[in-house]
Amino acid sequence: MTLNERALIELIRKTDRGQAPGLIRGIGDDCAVFEPGSEPWLISTDTLVDHIHFERAFHPPRLLGRKSMAVNLSDVAAMGGRPCFALLSLALPPDLSGEWLDEYVAGVRAILDEHGCTLIGGDTVRANELMISVTVLGQAEAGAVLYRSGAGTGDVVMVSGPLGSSAAGLALLQKNEEARHQEWSTGQWTELIASHLDPAPQVQLGLVLAASGMVTAMQDLSDGLATDLAHVCRESGVGALIRADQLPQLPELVAAGRYLAHAPLDWILRGGEDYQLVFTVRIGSVPALQALLTEKGLAEAVEVGEIRAGAGVFLESEPGKEQEITFQGFEHRGEQ
Amino acid sequence: MTLNERALIELIRKTDRGQAPGLIRGIGDDCAVFEPGSEPWLISTDTLVDHIHFERAFHPPRLLGRKSMAVNLSDVAAMGGRPCFALLSLALPPDLSGEWLDEYVAGVRAILDEHGCTLIGGDTVRANELMISVTVLGQAEAGAVLYRSGAGTGDVVMVSGPLGSSAAGLALLQKNEEARHQEWSTGQWTELIASHLDPAPQVQLGLVLAASGMVTAMQDLSDGLATDLAHVCRESGVGALIRADQLPQLPELVAAGRYLAHAPLDWILRGGEDYQLVFTVRIGSVPALQALLTEKGLAEAVEVGEIRAGAGVFLESEPGKEQEITFQGFEHRGEQ
Repeated sequence: MTLNERALIELIRKTDRGQAPGLIRGIGDDCAVFEPGSEPWLISTDTLVDHIHFERAFHPPRLLGRKSMAVNLSDVAAMGGRPCFALLSLALPPDLSGEWLDEYVAGVRAILDEHGCTLIGGDTVRANELMISVTVLGQAEAGAVLYRSGAGTGDVVMVSGPLGSSAAGLALLQKNEEARHQEWSTGQWTELIASHLDPAPQVQLGLVLAASGMVTAMQDLSDGLATDLAHVCRESGVGALIRADQLPQLPELVAAGRYLAHAPLDWILRGGEDYQLVFTVRIGSVPALQALLTEKGLAEAVEVGEIRAGAGVFLESEPGKEQEITFQGFEHRGEQ
Repeated sequence: MTLNERALIELIRKTDRGQAPGLIRGIGDDCAVFEPGSEPWLISTDTLVDHIHFERAFHPPRLLGRKSMAVNLSDVAAMGGRPCFALLSLALPPDLSGEWLDEYVAGVRAILDEHGCTLIGGDTVRANELMISVTVLGQAEAGAVLYRSGAGTGDVVMVSGPLGSSAAGLALLQKNEEARHQEWSTGQWTELIASHLDPAPQVQLGLVLAASGMVTAMQDLSDGLATDLAHVCRESGVGALIRADQLPQLPELVAAGRYLAHAPLDWILRGGEDYQLVFTVRIGSVPALQALLTEKGLAEAVEVGEIRAGAGVFLESEPGKEQEITFQGFEHRGEQ
């Protein structure tokens, strides 16, 4: 992010936070929040660019269709909303085939159907680069929107599932093409690769957490725990301590780390695009929350640390030994 | 538009028209319409690409900021809505200067302020091409949304102001650079050039027309009268006859036509991006409507023809002589 782009965001943020009638929250969270009637609505937009946010060369179009929606569905999930409507703008390079587009649209349609979300608009334009711009509108229950800003000292930090899988999957895919085919065919890394190519937005979980009344802040893991939890800390005016031995990971992550000579902990803390949720829970509420998740047929969440006074995100690698990891997460090559 | 892209739009259109709870209108009008509370909300998204929808080389960044918003504000105006919130996604090439961005943002902010619209979200990504994706949300009064589909036989076709100005302005700007500076400095073509670089979305007029109860269908003029009125005819299941001698134009349009050896009527019918409104009015209501516009301090609208049974848009170039012009409007080089 250059100085001027930061200035741009800051300018928008400063002027527009909650000053318009019906606007609850402008820039600075996963979604903007507005209240057109008696219930809050959420809106989020994201642009994905070939070679920066994905590689068309090895991202199957159907899965890219799913993922380009998942990124925004995840933003709605992260605030406890139910996605309702989507808009899709496609900038299409001339070499894109009709089959590619058919597959892409099938993927878009499939994931939207799974989440009861309807495509209500969009446009397609010709360009040199493939670029995908998605806007998703969601609805939340009155009083049940979860912001980044609600975390309090003593809260437990939890995540919804294994971390680092997507980054490891990407690293496996970025190997040479021959290896890539092998990864797919042997099936050894299927779960890691699927985490990258076809992440699942945690919509049901987000709704349950928002309705539970036990969660104080939430955000989705798009840029890695070190960065995403830092957003929660900054917005809440608190710090966080994460314990390395509590961070959940898929068993294959260790094997992939060995295979690629890469530390799994780096993927876990700094790898982006897991699209799990990170959230904070009042300290006494964890057992009740886990029981609720079980009752709803959802996987238990994982305690990974705690919120404390101060600022910044710190990692306890072994008892008594802390290092700061604030905002050390993944940045897309072109992300501002 | 290739076959597959048409198929894409048709697929979206077929599956998603008004089937979701709260969705009033999906793809197929200037905006999608949904009802989150007791009032309808409008949403529209558009992507603009350098060299296709604008030329960064001669579009001053402040005016491009204004225009990139105006295109979407105009979509909301065309359905009788009041723009409330905007989201902006920018794909920025590395050679873009900080000054350019500052100017661009200043333009965005200015036009949004003028219309009481608030920027509530967006993102910036790095790319090779400058690409601007805008989403605008607007609100309308219950029962007062104007669709393309309401025109009836015998209705009068009206437009809100001079046509062809933007296309003529673009043609003047597309001359070589030396000439371009001259156009600007002499001031002879100021109004035409301003129509292209800084079009004014007809938001106030759209609101008055929607509230009047006298207008049956409306759409904004983004692709030229021949195409945009054809959308109204197709959606309404009617035809239209336009009279050449009634079409409004700026006095300088004739001079520009002579200067560039181009028929002004071609700009008027086929030139895009005027962002005036075209609308249909019940035949007896025209005097009352004009009186209302005068009362509201707005310019009178101009009668240009009538809706009739059948299909297609026809031009009466002289009494009794008709030619079909259906969908003969402007297409952006890369528009699908």
